[in-house]
Amino acid sequence: MNGKTFVWPVRVYYEDSDAQGVVYYANYFKFMERARTEWIRSLGIEQDALMRKDRRIFVVVDTTAEFLSPARFNDQLAVTVRLTDLSRATFSMGQDIFRNNIDGELLCRGTIRAAFLNADTLKPARLPETLFKDFSL
Amino acid sequence: MNGKTFVWPVRVYYEDSDAQGVVYYANYFKFMERARTEWIRSLGIEQDALMRKDRRIFVVVDTTAEFLSPARFNDQLAVTVRLTDLSRATFSMGQDIFRNNIDGELLCRGTIRAAFLNADTLKPARLPETLFKDFSL
Amino acid sequence: MNGKTFVWPVRVYYEDSDAQGVVYYANYFKFMERARTEWIRSLGIEQDALMRKDRRIFVVVDTTAEFLSPARFNDQLAVTVRLTDLSRATFSMGQDIFRNNIDGELLCRGTIRAAFLNADTLKPARLPETLFKDFSL
Amino acid sequence: MNGKTFVWPVRVYYEDSDAQGVVYYANYFKFMERARTEWIRSLGIEQDALMRKDRRIFVVVDTTAEFLSPARFNDQLAVTVRLTDLSRATFSMGQDIFRNNIDGELLCRGTIRAAFLNADTLKPARLPETLFKDFSL
Repeated sequence: MNGKTFVWPVRVYYEDSDAQGVVYYANYFKFMERARTEWIRSLGIEQDALMRKDRRIFVVVDTTAEFLSPARFNDQLAVTVRLTDLSRATFSMGQDIFRNNIDGELLCRGTIRAAFLNADTLKPARLPETLFKDFSL
Repeated sequence: MNGKTFVWPVRVYYEDSDAQGVVYYANYFKFMERARTEWIRSLGIEQDALMRKDRRIFVVVDTTAEFLSPARFNDQLAVTVRLTDLSRATFSMGQDIFRNNIDGELLCRGTIRAAFLNADTLKPARLPETLFKDFSL
Repeated sequence: MNGKTFVWPVRVYYEDSDAQGVVYYANYFKFMERARTEWIRSLGIEQDALMRKDRRIFVVVDTTAEFLSPARFNDQLAVTVRLTDLSRATFSMGQDIFRNNIDGELLCRGTIRAAFLNADTLKPARLPETLFKDFSL
Repeated sequence: MNGKTFVWPVRVYYEDSDAQGVVYYANYFKFMERARTEWIRSLGIEQDALMRKDRRIFVVVDTTAEFLSPARFNDQLAVTVRLTDLSRATFSMGQDIFRNNIDGELLCRGTIRAAFLNADTLKPARLPETLFKDFSL
């Protein structure tokens, strides 16, 4: 699987930093989730409509992150999403965070596995055919 | 109205601080909400059951805060809740945040007005008789 | 004082919402601070350089917010900043949050008073002449 | 290495939940960090004094989390810390999150590797002899 890489810009605000002067480690996961949401939006899928109309949600199954160098207050970051694996109900992504842009310093290297669930039963759901096509690119 | 004052302890963690080394201003509102939730729990009301069974929720209508002195990473705080006004569907509280305990330095002085709503229609709801009695102390 | 109004777009992500399905009340203050930071940046002031080189920081002295209608997960918001008062060391702003854009529904009306401080002593500092000029527009 | 297990209670507030009605995935990392901070405090180490006096900080090098079952608004959680590996400048921990208490449902299984750094140079530092003794239990 060698999907295209999606890139989303994120600015570091005071809310993201901590008393060490750097981005608080849990907040990198927020940045990665913003990029995933925007990637899914770029495929034409709005998650609020998906939840309300189709009662389907994405949930994170597991995640890893390696923190290589700290992002700081006021930094401009580039967060990537790259599909690395896809089955009928789960998919995996690699996500990197760079300073400034994807040619900048690599700050964080993450992986995420997500599932597609029925919002009422929380049981695995099949990605709709059309979405599946979008995801497999 | 001269209700008793409820006090809830809060510890400042890295997640609460920012690159200025102090608590990020929006996070004082989290601390105040934790104290309100624990005060309501102390009255025998569990908000998750209230939402699920009675479809009733509390929402903040307006709030103010004055920041007198900064709380810092690792500080122990005491957050108060004092009922200042009560009608059938809204109520107001004064909330102070002190360092260490309520005899310590006053760091933040807040006010909150909250409404009690039907979770489905978001229209004002009457506080149930029993809750109303609890609130008026 | 009738400064121009600065507008900054904010998207509502899962991180901003809560179990009531709406934006958690403290997070509106994050949105307002992002808009202030971008407004200050638009005046040519980078707060990280200001802190590091000049040892000057902005801090919030007091704030108010009225929550008129809830923002929801996935909403696109427009957050405004308008200078309403200015002295040598403090300044006040009105900040509104609209759904979609500034012609959309008004969701939140806020005010903020901020001070300019010496980062080492936390004593009030004079806004540098050039900054002062920028602020008064 | 078979250290004792440290347990810290955490309550889920509105701030921690999201529009899916469950704890937002990044917030489990906040809960794990609170437990680590309290574990370190239980060893007699206050991180604010450590940073200010000794200019030493702990930073997260990498982390993983598996989300087995969602924690919900108002849940009471128990978060564990167990030292799994220790060298002169880094140490690893396993951290589990249970509903109610450590006999309750396992919701999240995490691992963390942390480094001990000089706060000025961000270079690895040796854990002071006394701390090292504390850590190795």
